[in-house]
Amino acid sequence: MPNSPRSFDDVKIGDRFLSEPFNVTEEQIIEFAREFDPQSFHLDRAVAERTMFRGLIASGWHTAAISMRLFIQTMNFAEGAIGLGVDELRWPNPVRPGDILRVETEIVDLRPSRSKPDCGIARIRNVTTNQRGEVVQTMFASALVPRRGPDNQTTDR
Amino acid sequence: MPNSPRSFDDVKIGDRFLSEPFNVTEEQIIEFAREFDPQSFHLDRAVAERTMFRGLIASGWHTAAISMRLFIQTMNFAEGAIGLGVDELRWPNPVRPGDILRVETEIVDLRPSRSKPDCGIARIRNVTTNQRGEVVQTMFASALVPRRGPDNQTTDR
Repeated sequence: MPNSPRSFDDVKIGDRFLSEPFNVTEEQIIEFAREFDPQSFHLDRAVAERTMFRGLIASGWHTAAISMRLFIQTMNFAEGAIGLGVDELRWPNPVRPGDILRVETEIVDLRPSRSKPDCGIARIRNVTTNQRGEVVQTMFASALVPRRGPDNQTTDR
Repeated sequence: MPNSPRSFDDVKIGDRFLSEPFNVTEEQIIEFAREFDPQSFHLDRAVAERTMFRGLIASGWHTAAISMRLFIQTMNFAEGAIGLGVDELRWPNPVRPGDILRVETEIVDLRPSRSKPDCGIARIRNVTTNQRGEVVQTMFASALVPRRGPDNQTTDR
């Protein structure tokens, strides 16, 4: 984990975080596709070369899963981040074997949780890019994130 | 594959399709979490029992990936379905070891693709439920789906 653990109270609106890089291999793309998205353009290089993609591409759900891993590692919330929902998930460019992905996270909103007073709800935007700076995924998400315990709270919240 | 291959021209608005069942195991949940969502409530049964979930739960991205598999198997589009985007992805109830999931797909809209005349764009709603009928995931998605070749076209399209 690259950073010390964070709580809801350690981030503010407008904060941005850039993940470590992640190298995508052909083997990973095929393995994920076999299990979760068995379509020829994710499974078979020769067939994929005859499609509009002209080569093997990763399942969008694989890109989403890799992006989750990078987000979790970067943010390192002490007690985790529980996904409440995702909006406007898009894959504007394909992910191919050999791509190196990074996720940039922006905190777009923060509010207390009504039902769970020891948690807050963070609204985030995650943008996943490849080594050429092309955007391969964008999304908004809401996550439930624990606050610091009472003995660590500042008095002005 | 439970059904014969379909094209865009084989479905109509309002059609509904129910997938085969899929059994979720503790091993699958932990394996997915290790690779893509390494948070304690997805990884470690003992720790998970002390969280608000009172037991191990699957990553929402794992539920999404399983749902994709069930959707692909059910629809069996002859040349695949290329995900353009997903909206309002929600996880209203957790997925736990031993759960049996199914996906119901509804075709909510169909339109020709402007940029690719040999394809159409299907707007679908997927609802994933467990063996008790509880909804564990809902989403809308748009997918690019190839039409039948010209020699198979009806003349009234």
